[in-house]
Amino acid sequence: MLTVDQAREQLLAAARRITETETLALNDALGRVLATDVVSTLAVPGFDNSAMDGYALNVADFSAPTAFRVVQRIAAGDTGSALAPGEAARIFTGAPVPEGSNAVAMQEDCNVETTTLTVNTRLQPGQHIRRRGEDVQQGAVVIQAGTRLGAAELGLLAAVGVGQVAVVRKLRVALLSTGNELVEPGSPLAPAQIYNSNRYALSALLREAGCIVDDLGIVPDQFAATRDILADAAATHDVVLSTGGVSVGEEDHVKAAVESLGALSLWKIAIKPGKPFACGRIGDADFIGLPGNPVSSFVTFIVFVRPFLAARTGRDAPEPAIRVPAGFTIERAGNRREYLRARLVDGRVVLFPNQSSGVLTSVVWADGLVIVPEAATVREGDPVDFLPLATLN
Amino acid sequence: MLTVDQAREQLLAAARRITETETLALNDALGRVLATDVVSTLAVPGFDNSAMDGYALNVADFSAPTAFRVVQRIAAGDTGSALAPGEAARIFTGAPVPEGSNAVAMQEDCNVETTTLTVNTRLQPGQHIRRRGEDVQQGAVVIQAGTRLGAAELGLLAAVGVGQVAVVRKLRVALLSTGNELVEPGSPLAPAQIYNSNRYALSALLREAGCIVDDLGIVPDQFAATRDILADAAATHDVVLSTGGVSVGEEDHVKAAVESLGALSLWKIAIKPGKPFACGRIGDADFIGLPGNPVSSFVTFIVFVRPFLAARTGRDAPEPAIRVPAGFTIERAGNRREYLRARLVDGRVVLFPNQSSGVLTSVVWADGLVIVPEAATVREGDPVDFLPLATLN
Repeated sequence: MLTVDQAREQLLAAARRITETETLALNDALGRVLATDVVSTLAVPGFDNSAMDGYALNVADFSAPTAFRVVQRIAAGDTGSALAPGEAARIFTGAPVPEGSNAVAMQEDCNVETTTLTVNTRLQPGQHIRRRGEDVQQGAVVIQAGTRLGAAELGLLAAVGVGQVAVVRKLRVALLSTGNELVEPGSPLAPAQIYNSNRYALSALLREAGCIVDDLGIVPDQFAATRDILADAAATHDVVLSTGGVSVGEEDHVKAAVESLGALSLWKIAIKPGKPFACGRIGDADFIGLPGNPVSSFVTFIVFVRPFLAARTGRDAPEPAIRVPAGFTIERAGNRREYLRARLVDGRVVLFPNQSSGVLTSVVWADGLVIVPEAATVREGDPVDFLPLATLN
Repeated sequence: MLTVDQAREQLLAAARRITETETLALNDALGRVLATDVVSTLAVPGFDNSAMDGYALNVADFSAPTAFRVVQRIAAGDTGSALAPGEAARIFTGAPVPEGSNAVAMQEDCNVETTTLTVNTRLQPGQHIRRRGEDVQQGAVVIQAGTRLGAAELGLLAAVGVGQVAVVRKLRVALLSTGNELVEPGSPLAPAQIYNSNRYALSALLREAGCIVDDLGIVPDQFAATRDILADAAATHDVVLSTGGVSVGEEDHVKAAVESLGALSLWKIAIKPGKPFACGRIGDADFIGLPGNPVSSFVTFIVFVRPFLAARTGRDAPEPAIRVPAGFTIERAGNRREYLRARLVDGRVVLFPNQSSGVLTSVVWADGLVIVPEAATVREGDPVDFLPLATLN
């Protein structure tokens, strides 16, 4: 039996980083992984500028307030000329302060009579002036390779004048479900059949993780069909992800099919939910087999597959757990690490009443997963690790 | 001066919920907002079934363990026939337990000699049997209208047999930037010019919020051009979002242009960063004007625009703040509510050193925003509200 940490470590060690990149315009790069460090060729801001609408001043003596003579007007996009002591320039937010400026007064604090300006407040040297390079220094690495590009990152790339970026190509993932009992939603159910829910949840999780997903549907519980589909999928994808068919039951053909085509390890991992987990290789593709229970496949995706996919694109994607007080007591957990479906209520995490791995409503209800360490006792009020599901994009 | 809460309340009260829907296959519905409650027409699971690979048993007396006779074999997807007392059925995870079953024994706990089975552990009534309706009861509302459909929701819809869902149509948003000083990344900068970063950050924020974005680029600081572009944008979009041009400076033509076409309120909101905020109407479209500073536009988008857009699609999207200990001291905040760029480090929030609204690197660095209430004093270790940026999809 592997611990969660051992299993994740082995999996990440086996993740081959893909090196193909593509160059995209900024608006097309949302959610993508930056391929190379971006170094700024310029300082941001590129010039000392006004943080306010008001007046740029050349103050001769900050201890003795005086009147200023307004000699010019500088809008954003304009440049002014140097101010002599006692001179002022009408200025707007973002406009360059002229040479000689040593403070900006907000217009709300100013009285102007024709060209004579008085300031109602005490002036501080440098006030309301944003300095060149305050945000980004020329030559600085603004975003590192391996970073997922969100809204702020795209804004910063634009701010340093970068209009196109090299990003890692998307992973191509083939998704398979196995099980004679599975029926597609929208079709009628015969006795003993169930609807295939993993297919839809995992396709969404994969897309949220930035992958191109080819959903190959349900393969029957037959060795030859399973093998043929796996071979085709492996030839055209980086990763083949399957659910069901990896337990020790006699009805599982996926194990034999993968072994006939490549190599497979069946791991027993000390995790709840989600014990059976398979990983291996078919040609140049990774194979990952998740449990068939919908909650188990969801949790094992988050705990193992998501970091594995991130590592393949060179992205660092740790579990962003936060520590919060428990709103429950567990007298002594089992010897597996448990990922319980939970919600934050008034600053404490509370558990969904039914933590069975068959109960998908628990995941819909949950804001996140409480991580209960192996054999731990948790008492109400103890700090526990909570993994918000919304942070996993 | 409006408080943040007053401004948000007024804005949400003015949000007209759009009623047009479209029907999508589950795989196309990721990230969309459910238009109507979904009621399950079936129970999930639909039948009592085995939680394990092993043997379904009809135990005559739980206090006196005995041997069982294996009389049948039930794979997932098969149905069995009733078990008499003392009989067992080979069974696999998810398969229906036959009538008469009152426990399932895991195969690891069983010894089988030809057709005689003995169980090594003490049996509990009902063990390893998942009951019909344990996950979803027939007739239950499984997902409510207004819910954003993530991976778990799509899985649950599939589990209850729903293959298509009615979702609210996407909002169409026109995005405009104003400012003579703005230049597109990739082009050279003249003196006093800066690159337009808001355009890229806001386009990404809007798309992450589920909108269709038409980026209309930079409009010059001229009244007529601004008015014409605003009129065209309003005719074909639900919302027109503009950055820059809403401060009290003389150089702002957006205010006059919106007023000439419809109605505009200029709000002074007690928020830092982000004071100038404009909202109004042009024909049937909402107009929102954000500050031009990149950090101010980012923060005001999150605090005001995102909940407004959510309300227009009927989605409830509260600020998902968590309470964590401060890793900093603020002796007495100003009279505006502050949203400081921060990170969680060892369970405490620490601040980016430069909180100027011009410093976009602060947002890239940050995991989230610390919310410091108006005029509050925060001492190291005090609990503060922290809004993780990753939870805002």
